[in-house]
Amino acid sequence: MSALPAVPAHIQALDRDDPLAPLRAAFCLDPGVIYLDGNSLGALPRATAPRLAEVISREWGSGLVRSWNTHDWIGAPQRIGAKIARLIGARPNEVVAADSTSVNLFKLVAAATGLAPTRRIILTEPANFPTDLYVIQGLRDLLGSRVEPRLAPPETLASAIDEDTALVVLTHVHYAAGRRWDVAEMTSRAHAKGALVLWDLSHSAGALSVDLGAAGADLAVGCGYKYLNGGPGAPAFLFVAERHQAAIGSPLCGWMGHAAPFAFDDDYRPAPGVDRFLCGTPSILGLAALEAGVEMFEGLEMATVEAKGLALCRLFLRLAETRCPQLRLASPADGAERGLHLCFRHDDGYAVMQALIERGVIGDFRPPDLMRFGFAPLYVSYADVWNAVETLAGVLTSRAFDDPRYRERAAVT
Amino acid sequence: MSALPAVPAHIQALDRDDPLAPLRAAFCLDPGVIYLDGNSLGALPRATAPRLAEVISREWGSGLVRSWNTHDWIGAPQRIGAKIARLIGARPNEVVAADSTSVNLFKLVAAATGLAPTRRIILTEPANFPTDLYVIQGLRDLLGSRVEPRLAPPETLASAIDEDTALVVLTHVHYAAGRRWDVAEMTSRAHAKGALVLWDLSHSAGALSVDLGAAGADLAVGCGYKYLNGGPGAPAFLFVAERHQAAIGSPLCGWMGHAAPFAFDDDYRPAPGVDRFLCGTPSILGLAALEAGVEMFEGLEMATVEAKGLALCRLFLRLAETRCPQLRLASPADGAERGLHLCFRHDDGYAVMQALIERGVIGDFRPPDLMRFGFAPLYVSYADVWNAVETLAGVLTSRAFDDPRYRERAAVT
Repeated sequence: MSALPAVPAHIQALDRDDPLAPLRAAFCLDPGVIYLDGNSLGALPRATAPRLAEVISREWGSGLVRSWNTHDWIGAPQRIGAKIARLIGARPNEVVAADSTSVNLFKLVAAATGLAPTRRIILTEPANFPTDLYVIQGLRDLLGSRVEPRLAPPETLASAIDEDTALVVLTHVHYAAGRRWDVAEMTSRAHAKGALVLWDLSHSAGALSVDLGAAGADLAVGCGYKYLNGGPGAPAFLFVAERHQAAIGSPLCGWMGHAAPFAFDDDYRPAPGVDRFLCGTPSILGLAALEAGVEMFEGLEMATVEAKGLALCRLFLRLAETRCPQLRLASPADGAERGLHLCFRHDDGYAVMQALIERGVIGDFRPPDLMRFGFAPLYVSYADVWNAVETLAGVLTSRAFDDPRYRERAAVT
Repeated sequence: MSALPAVPAHIQALDRDDPLAPLRAAFCLDPGVIYLDGNSLGALPRATAPRLAEVISREWGSGLVRSWNTHDWIGAPQRIGAKIARLIGARPNEVVAADSTSVNLFKLVAAATGLAPTRRIILTEPANFPTDLYVIQGLRDLLGSRVEPRLAPPETLASAIDEDTALVVLTHVHYAAGRRWDVAEMTSRAHAKGALVLWDLSHSAGALSVDLGAAGADLAVGCGYKYLNGGPGAPAFLFVAERHQAAIGSPLCGWMGHAAPFAFDDDYRPAPGVDRFLCGTPSILGLAALEAGVEMFEGLEMATVEAKGLALCRLFLRLAETRCPQLRLASPADGAERGLHLCFRHDDGYAVMQALIERGVIGDFRPPDLMRFGFAPLYVSYADVWNAVETLAGVLTSRAFDDPRYRERAAVT
């Protein structure tokens, strides 16, 4: 394709004035790549490869089994949990890093049903992220009539919460549309009916200024490999508000959630606090990479991070309106109602995205026709946004996406 | 401490004749360390650090989200599962690598209760590895009277299997004593009563010649970070015999266990085969290290591996009988009834082990008074065994373990 025009001076000025601009150099990003998929897999921090080399060669290779103590492997879930806690407005003792988002969802959905044995309904929205829906369905199959999954569309969801609702499971920022719930408002509406809320923060931790404490939140889970830059399939995290910790129990009782794991008792006795939601042996390599990713946020205010992300989204939208009229916005038009990704409909969305990726602009596709672009504030620049829209405009105008090779579906879309 | 005497010629000859001896150079082991704790955390293969550097820098850093397809991250659980399958006598399509041993235990214990809804008993032995016991207790707390955990001592366990037994959960090689069950015999005795057996292979995969297929085994789980050398907290594996796969369902329904994960359907539809036991996004860094560890077994017959391990144990026992009469063997005296670790009682076991570790001989301690030594056949030599016994004899004879600093308990024993 032809070279893009030079980035205009007013766009360059935005990057010059961006307080987060220096952070980009702390990530490995190949020249020629504009990465707008940090909402699916965050970019690689420069610190990660040397950190992992150290953990592998020195801690594992030389330290061997001794490193559980000498390098505090055993404390990694809580230590990293505390660092994530700061990013989501939680207390350090309310978060642990462990397992996958799906497994953590199961733990907390099941635990919440135990807190409200007389209430049967677990309420969520249709077209939520699949794993959030499937975990609830799996629990229903396991527990039978004690649990009844119920779906309500976002417009009427709040009014569907009733005296039989044990738990409301909501993804703070919708994985496709990018629509954002008001955490405090929905938590308060659920509490008014005596229900709890479990927030899936997969698309907001490390992106938005979340304040679980101020919202009176009950339970949350989130993903380590998106905006937290923990690497592919990184350990996830879970949050249990301090006030619930004494009464709530994990259904996945593993030795790491025991009050005294190395006493090797026959009887399970839950650890005090959120630690009881640990289960098996912590995944040290994954946790080390997650820790390096989370440390990219050290010293940053999440309000600054969110503000830049929203500004990147606004710029993309404004430029795309003029340059890419073929696209239909599928995300809310109002930035206050969105997370940090934008979603557009296009009948040839899959092929358009493949053509874009081949031109170095990496977003992703979600069925049936959604093109998704995420704007991770730590490494995406305003110039990236401008270049991305120009490239997209070129693909759309030239109909480059008509090339049949862009229609071959890969295993992972 | 004083230098050890030279390794006798007849011990050196054993190493010279050992077909597995060349493999030791494929592991990173510091000079001065004799590592007899591969049953807790396997040693670091030389291939692992460069493999992880490649996965991190090239696949994640440059490939970014594209590597789910281009580097087949998405196929890692099945690809590595198939490599593990060969080591345990399973078919390639009967094993996946995923999650932790504890989480996989939960999946399969819960799944087995679903297969036999009229049977309530889940039978295991007291003093089994804690997580195996706790997972069953947690399921009982979740499901109530549908599930009843029952304990029977090993001597009478087979006769305790009855028409109300849904599942027998046994650890093939006991984590402490090292006592070994006969997989084929116990499976057959359970089947005779219409019960299934779930084998925990944590201390046998990569150590013993296991043949799940020949034994008619139903279900199994195992650990990636012991004899499989997958690194601290490596992903675990699970096995479901092909004949059970169509009827059995996972209680942890995550998007990766869906028949079409990237269709983003609202309704859970289990993947065909063992894939339905996948749950969240696979942990790619952990799986890459596990794959490097499992590949250490390429081209090896497990019968050769087991034979060397048992020979190392016999040598240790024979030398220790003469040189360390202070120890009382807590493992079966007959090698055919043991795995690849030995356990000894000593009233000051904890302090003795600390003194040994300081002298470069790394084993571990399990309460109340058990010193454990594991003999991983891929990197432990006969000379190591001889030197370890000499060092142990020195510690015991000199009462070096009386030093108060060896009595300070660490978080992880």
